[in-house]
Amino acid sequence: MIFASDNWAGASREVLAALTAAGAAGPLPAYGDDDATRRLEARFAEVFEREVDVFLVATGTAANALSVAAFAPPWGQLLIHEEGHLAVDECGAPEFFAGTRTVALPGRFGKLDAADLARRLADWPIGVHHGKPAVLSITQANECGRVYTPAEVTALAGTAHAHGLAVHMDGSRLANAVARLGCSLAEVTWKAGVDVLSFGATKGGCLMAEAIVSFDPSKREELAFRRKRGGHLISKHRLVAAQFDAWLDDGHWLDLARHANAMADRLARGIAASRVARLAWEPEANEVFAVMRPATADRLTAAGARFYDWSTAGLAPEDRPGEGETLHRLVTSFATTPDEVDAFLAALAEL
Amino acid sequence: MIFASDNWAGASREVLAALTAAGAAGPLPAYGDDDATRRLEARFAEVFEREVDVFLVATGTAANALSVAAFAPPWGQLLIHEEGHLAVDECGAPEFFAGTRTVALPGRFGKLDAADLARRLADWPIGVHHGKPAVLSITQANECGRVYTPAEVTALAGTAHAHGLAVHMDGSRLANAVARLGCSLAEVTWKAGVDVLSFGATKGGCLMAEAIVSFDPSKREELAFRRKRGGHLISKHRLVAAQFDAWLDDGHWLDLARHANAMADRLARGIAASRVARLAWEPEANEVFAVMRPATADRLTAAGARFYDWSTAGLAPEDRPGEGETLHRLVTSFATTPDEVDAFLAALAEL
Amino acid sequence: MIFASDNWAGASREVLAALTAAGAAGPLPAYGDDDATRRLEARFAEVFEREVDVFLVATGTAANALSVAAFAPPWGQLLIHEEGHLAVDECGAPEFFAGTRTVALPGRFGKLDAADLARRLADWPIGVHHGKPAVLSITQANECGRVYTPAEVTALAGTAHAHGLAVHMDGSRLANAVARLGCSLAEVTWKAGVDVLSFGATKGGCLMAEAIVSFDPSKREELAFRRKRGGHLISKHRLVAAQFDAWLDDGHWLDLARHANAMADRLARGIAASRVARLAWEPEANEVFAVMRPATADRLTAAGARFYDWSTAGLAPEDRPGEGETLHRLVTSFATTPDEVDAFLAALAEL
Amino acid sequence: MIFASDNWAGASREVLAALTAAGAAGPLPAYGDDDATRRLEARFAEVFEREVDVFLVATGTAANALSVAAFAPPWGQLLIHEEGHLAVDECGAPEFFAGTRTVALPGRFGKLDAADLARRLADWPIGVHHGKPAVLSITQANECGRVYTPAEVTALAGTAHAHGLAVHMDGSRLANAVARLGCSLAEVTWKAGVDVLSFGATKGGCLMAEAIVSFDPSKREELAFRRKRGGHLISKHRLVAAQFDAWLDDGHWLDLARHANAMADRLARGIAASRVARLAWEPEANEVFAVMRPATADRLTAAGARFYDWSTAGLAPEDRPGEGETLHRLVTSFATTPDEVDAFLAALAEL
Repeated sequence: MIFASDNWAGASREVLAALTAAGAAGPLPAYGDDDATRRLEARFAEVFEREVDVFLVATGTAANALSVAAFAPPWGQLLIHEEGHLAVDECGAPEFFAGTRTVALPGRFGKLDAADLARRLADWPIGVHHGKPAVLSITQANECGRVYTPAEVTALAGTAHAHGLAVHMDGSRLANAVARLGCSLAEVTWKAGVDVLSFGATKGGCLMAEAIVSFDPSKREELAFRRKRGGHLISKHRLVAAQFDAWLDDGHWLDLARHANAMADRLARGIAASRVARLAWEPEANEVFAVMRPATADRLTAAGARFYDWSTAGLAPEDRPGEGETLHRLVTSFATTPDEVDAFLAALAEL
Repeated sequence: MIFASDNWAGASREVLAALTAAGAAGPLPAYGDDDATRRLEARFAEVFEREVDVFLVATGTAANALSVAAFAPPWGQLLIHEEGHLAVDECGAPEFFAGTRTVALPGRFGKLDAADLARRLADWPIGVHHGKPAVLSITQANECGRVYTPAEVTALAGTAHAHGLAVHMDGSRLANAVARLGCSLAEVTWKAGVDVLSFGATKGGCLMAEAIVSFDPSKREELAFRRKRGGHLISKHRLVAAQFDAWLDDGHWLDLARHANAMADRLARGIAASRVARLAWEPEANEVFAVMRPATADRLTAAGARFYDWSTAGLAPEDRPGEGETLHRLVTSFATTPDEVDAFLAALAEL
Repeated sequence: MIFASDNWAGASREVLAALTAAGAAGPLPAYGDDDATRRLEARFAEVFEREVDVFLVATGTAANALSVAAFAPPWGQLLIHEEGHLAVDECGAPEFFAGTRTVALPGRFGKLDAADLARRLADWPIGVHHGKPAVLSITQANECGRVYTPAEVTALAGTAHAHGLAVHMDGSRLANAVARLGCSLAEVTWKAGVDVLSFGATKGGCLMAEAIVSFDPSKREELAFRRKRGGHLISKHRLVAAQFDAWLDDGHWLDLARHANAMADRLARGIAASRVARLAWEPEANEVFAVMRPATADRLTAAGARFYDWSTAGLAPEDRPGEGETLHRLVTSFATTPDEVDAFLAALAEL
Repeated sequence: MIFASDNWAGASREVLAALTAAGAAGPLPAYGDDDATRRLEARFAEVFEREVDVFLVATGTAANALSVAAFAPPWGQLLIHEEGHLAVDECGAPEFFAGTRTVALPGRFGKLDAADLARRLADWPIGVHHGKPAVLSITQANECGRVYTPAEVTALAGTAHAHGLAVHMDGSRLANAVARLGCSLAEVTWKAGVDVLSFGATKGGCLMAEAIVSFDPSKREELAFRRKRGGHLISKHRLVAAQFDAWLDDGHWLDLARHANAMADRLARGIAASRVARLAWEPEANEVFAVMRPATADRLTAAGARFYDWSTAGLAPEDRPGEGETLHRLVTSFATTPDEVDAFLAALAEL
């Protein structure tokens, strides 16, 4: 009954097999100058339906912060939802890597809205006293487990581009979003106006596989130098390349994401049906937000369930828990089993 | 006949087995807050014979640069041999992470000398106009494949401490050094005055396993925050913890290092005995530096050997190749086989 | 009729005389190692009624950003009112100098409230994922021309200290605040809990005279190194020292501030009495905020008046201009004459 | 008998008069958006014989470091003579502002040599592991009081440009160099290939007047943002503009520099003629380097002379003082009088 986070899981059997095979293989050039990495780059081009620049890194924080650094000047501003991972959970990494100021914007269910963004940018103070907005970052699927449609990404990116901002997508759960949307990776990224993507496979079934995918070839050199300078050029590149390769192979990544989403749906349906908990909002990926009394949460924990209390600071008033209620996040992963979900729901039913 | 670098190798069977087991295990708290990581920390305390703070990271560059950042103020200077990895091969990572100025010092065979350092520090300009020396970094085994004895480390560290500098050891090949010296890890690190260590297992038989080992508890919080901020807090910590654990288990790390060193010795003896190449200097770890004519090197390459041309810029005049000769580096690893060495020597003999 | 900003004025006669005398004097050691600077430091100790560390710099931005850098770690957060100069007008200088994240907080009339701050800090997420709050910065008099009483500063500083934050005061108009409050410099700074102060004399009657005044001797070395490294150690220190000295001499600074405040009061009374404009709120220093129709503002401008349109973004709903009205800022200075004010009010009366 | 440094002097009468007039003048827009600054920019265009971008700042350190930051990426390297001010005396300001690595190069009498530079750049390691050379900075007149001819600058800049480096000139004593060379400002700067210049008037007769003069319009926005972000956009711009204006007026700057140079020559001739001191090398600007016994220096100091002991670390062996001798720097300024020089020489003669 572990719903703490999808990064509590291990890796899929297929990914582990590929990792083991890669590790046992003979000598390969280091630092990504090897055939395995080149094969992976070709595969990225395939799944994205165009040439892309790929930079493998160790963490989503690195992918996010390096992306911002390459697309914003130091006097630029990073516009991001106030619940965004870069805004809340990455210890000031954009300030460190890019020097930018982080400007947190509101929006319901963790999503930014193009019309609201347009209104803000129309009046944005720009100049040497103020700096200037430089990068818009959106999370897909986002920190509230919600998903931007390609049309929504297109609208946000269009607004951003019209004001000279580049668009970054934090895709640590992009697989879950794509699985839900039923669209292609291309449709919800570069075709919708995304300039640079943090594409995460760690939460989706690998042990460690994160990539910066840049759709702007003019940033190639900068990203390459910045990655090394940030200590993110992994020497035995095969470690990451092999995991990504197996994950992307034959739709494995989508299968894993669909499973995680299905488990979230199963969990959500059960919670919605329960008498002692309710959904804070409909899940759209693999994160379920539930409202219950603290005592309920405590009893679930005592029964062995693991999930996080969640901050309500960024919620609109109409979305807040009622008096005496608290908000909780439950995350499913590729490794979540129906039995685990059902055990949780059974524990809930007993309360 | 791959002697390009020890990071061209994969991982040892034992390490891979542990990695696979860890990846297939059930859910574990992320970001190092798990039992596997705690067990590893206890193991580090054992092998270092004292309490230490351990911060697992993705690369040696990260370990090195974060160490400097935690032990030097931004206006500090990093003193390091002019052939040091941080000085030559890490793209200005200390400038990025720490803000420090890198001051490159000379020394025979890539080693700094305590008496020379003392002379320099006695006259070092210090003050707001100049900044001040803050961290001394030495590489063990170093970039010339040479080893500092515990006495030499003690002398350097004593000089550094007397002038207010902290001492960092870049130990990406520390296992090879310890295997050669026959001393304990403690004797050549903290007992000799090292304040913070980059302890690398990647080159020594893992796919990716690097650790900052700090002997100064007052730096704990700073290192923790800086690691996350630098994007180096790996979420599925088990990936690194499991590799390190297997590597440290039962002297496996020393066995692997002894093997690599033995292969270097075998290679060195063969080169010394050859008519068309000679040793630039005696190897003391797993790196062999050979002097030959470029045509010789070309023919070995044509025969399938892989090794790097090496810069002679940092060599003392008496150590430089002669007219018409060039310098080459050959590195052995845990995966190098006697057959590989012998094939190379046979190719050499045929020229 | 120039009410654009108090930094549009020149310098007072007394300050200019001192500057000229200093410039014409014979040789003096550079970089502040001179008697004029030492005399000034003694004078600062007098007016602050205790030993202080004084670092003269060129701009308020430098004073503010260096202060933050010395009192916050790079992973710290700067808490500041959303209208604060460091938050709005300094081009990301704290991100550059300190690496900190800027967190903008709301509050009526540009002021932070201790109870609100306490509520926020009680729930503040702290840890390696989030960073931590490190410095509270308040502006005195603030960007809305309002003043913190010593009791208010004491309450804010007490809250900040209780949560481990240092307290910075941006005092580019501190003289105006002190003149209004009728308290001593000590009462509203260190006695109220301020740890470090940007003390500005430029707006108050000098051409360029800004000082970091630190009440924490443990930051002395850091501030000295950071100032030089930031390019803010002025070589001919007499330039700044002489201006500050004349400004602090014999209450000259307070006389100038009282005059500016009196001119603001005269302006405010006239606006309050006018039929076509009204005060947005009562001024407490030398800045008057007026609400009028844009056409009124245009006609005043056509008549030769200079003042800025002002953003209403940070205003509470109850303080916002009505339909068809806009907000404007008018600033008086030591150089504003009653005639100038009266000419403006006459122009207003004619509309 | 003050020969400590040219920044120990005050300002010329003409400069002070202009400063006083500017300070007493009526209101002017702040931050350089005023007529006085625009007039100054026009004057810069005149003296440089082309359009230039001018950014007034408070210190030479700021001018130097901002220039490097605008012309080098963070992973770039700053190539500079090992005696260069940025390398020795600015507390790591380029590391702070630009993130670059400082690479110190040797050269006789503080000068870099184009042929030597070309040899080095031909073999320079470039790539993500190493970074890349980005800016060449030369000092004119340099730290040894020597001058680059336009031909020498042209050769160095040509070499730099051929390898993709931008060329920065640290011109804190450029007036002295131009006065000596008898060339135009244009000939020894942009016509010789300089891309960006730190043009200092502080040492040459102002109290504080430094400018970044950029010959590359593509860097305009970056320099503007970086200056503000670094706290170097002075609010009452008239302070600097007025000083520069008076200094550039009617050849005043050249008259002052010629006087300082003449005083240096007078001093040098006297030292060369003395029995107890000798010239370390011929002065070419306003700095005289003398070799004497420490006891001689002590007696001169006791007689009231002020000058600095100087490091011999960067000297070629053939230029070093002999056994029992030390090196000393004596600097003249616009304010040095013949009597002062003669008094020093008389004191020397008495020893």
